[in-house]
Amino acid sequence: MIRDPEILGRKLGLKFIDKTLMQTALTHRSAASPNNERLEFLGDSILGFVIAEYLYEKFPKADEGVLSRLRSNLVNQSSLAELARNVDLGDFLILGSGEMKSGGYRRDSILSDAIEALIGALYKDQGYERCKAWVLGLFANRIDDVTLDNWEKDPKTRLQELMQSKGLKLPSYTLKSTSGLPHQQSFSVECEVELLDKPQLGIGSSRKKAEQQAAQTVLDLLL
Amino acid sequence: MIRDPEILGRKLGLKFIDKTLMQTALTHRSAASPNNERLEFLGDSILGFVIAEYLYEKFPKADEGVLSRLRSNLVNQSSLAELARNVDLGDFLILGSGEMKSGGYRRDSILSDAIEALIGALYKDQGYERCKAWVLGLFANRIDDVTLDNWEKDPKTRLQELMQSKGLKLPSYTLKSTSGLPHQQSFSVECEVELLDKPQLGIGSSRKKAEQQAAQTVLDLLL
Repeated sequence: MIRDPEILGRKLGLKFIDKTLMQTALTHRSAASPNNERLEFLGDSILGFVIAEYLYEKFPKADEGVLSRLRSNLVNQSSLAELARNVDLGDFLILGSGEMKSGGYRRDSILSDAIEALIGALYKDQGYERCKAWVLGLFANRIDDVTLDNWEKDPKTRLQELMQSKGLKLPSYTLKSTSGLPHQQSFSVECEVELLDKPQLGIGSSRKKAEQQAAQTVLDLLL
Repeated sequence: MIRDPEILGRKLGLKFIDKTLMQTALTHRSAASPNNERLEFLGDSILGFVIAEYLYEKFPKADEGVLSRLRSNLVNQSSLAELARNVDLGDFLILGSGEMKSGGYRRDSILSDAIEALIGALYKDQGYERCKAWVLGLFANRIDDVTLDNWEKDPKTRLQELMQSKGLKLPSYTLKSTSGLPHQQSFSVECEVELLDKPQLGIGSSRKKAEQQAAQTVLDLLL
């Protein structure tokens, strides 16, 4: 039983002028045409821009690498799915019978796509400024929690803290090879963590640099 | 000898109110602080949104996969670098002496980052509507050339045409394995092209579907 989208609108503080846009945003491709894929494409790009600008303004001293990592930590499939679950968005999704039976309304990818599609739909319905304000409101709690503390630490420290916070084993680093002349060596190191099947390689002009690079690669995969 | 940015402004149809924004956009991280990395982060997200909206409106029937491929074909490092070369942008870049000696002003990555940084700078200087209009003008020729013709063909056909247009050998497909019961088989096929070191795998419920998937993976890597 799919619930009335008006109720979702109230939970989200959204009132669409064109109700069909909201309906499309809630329609998974398994159900019907038009579905929410095009709106998701649009919404994803709006979300990227809104959050980029917010972080750019909030952290005038942060470099591009830090801003990118802050953004991908704030906006990703699992953070969007969590926002969706907070308003029981799954109850309002229009899914094909196969997806319905297999529990598609609980799946991160489907939930996060629907949030992005709602962003795209709101933009089409009410323009950029309104859409931006709504997105920032939706992310308000998370955004307030963002500080640079974690992002100015080096990758090895951040990876270690991440593993500790999840109660997992600490990452292990293995020197795989060294090459080059003594004054111009290149080191390759593998970093292994419980959450990934395979170790990740880092290369650098010192063992420490190679370890940091490997840790960064692992973080990029995990966050 | 770095040329006067006013000249670049005239070539690009840009007049900054805050000249330091333009200067920052033209400063590579090898030269000085502030450099253009933060503006590039912002500009990249604006560019993604502007082009997403343009394609969304222009092709109301195209699905999300087609829109994504059109965008990555329109906006990528080499297309941005080409736009930069059209206005001799390299002559206006502020680079560190190492980058200067090694010819950084010719490098695709540095040129394309500077274009994105100029987009970010214009947004900060003159707001979204002006920035969007300028971006669409910058891409006007390319945008006018965009048609769905190429994107509605299947991946094998598109990959074949791509190889032909570059005067390269046609892609080769090799069946690697079949598995499953006769009425529920799974095929895996490798697609090999001259431009990639390694063959790419596709999996599907028929040999043809597996080939199409492998071709799509190759296209995603090449475009």
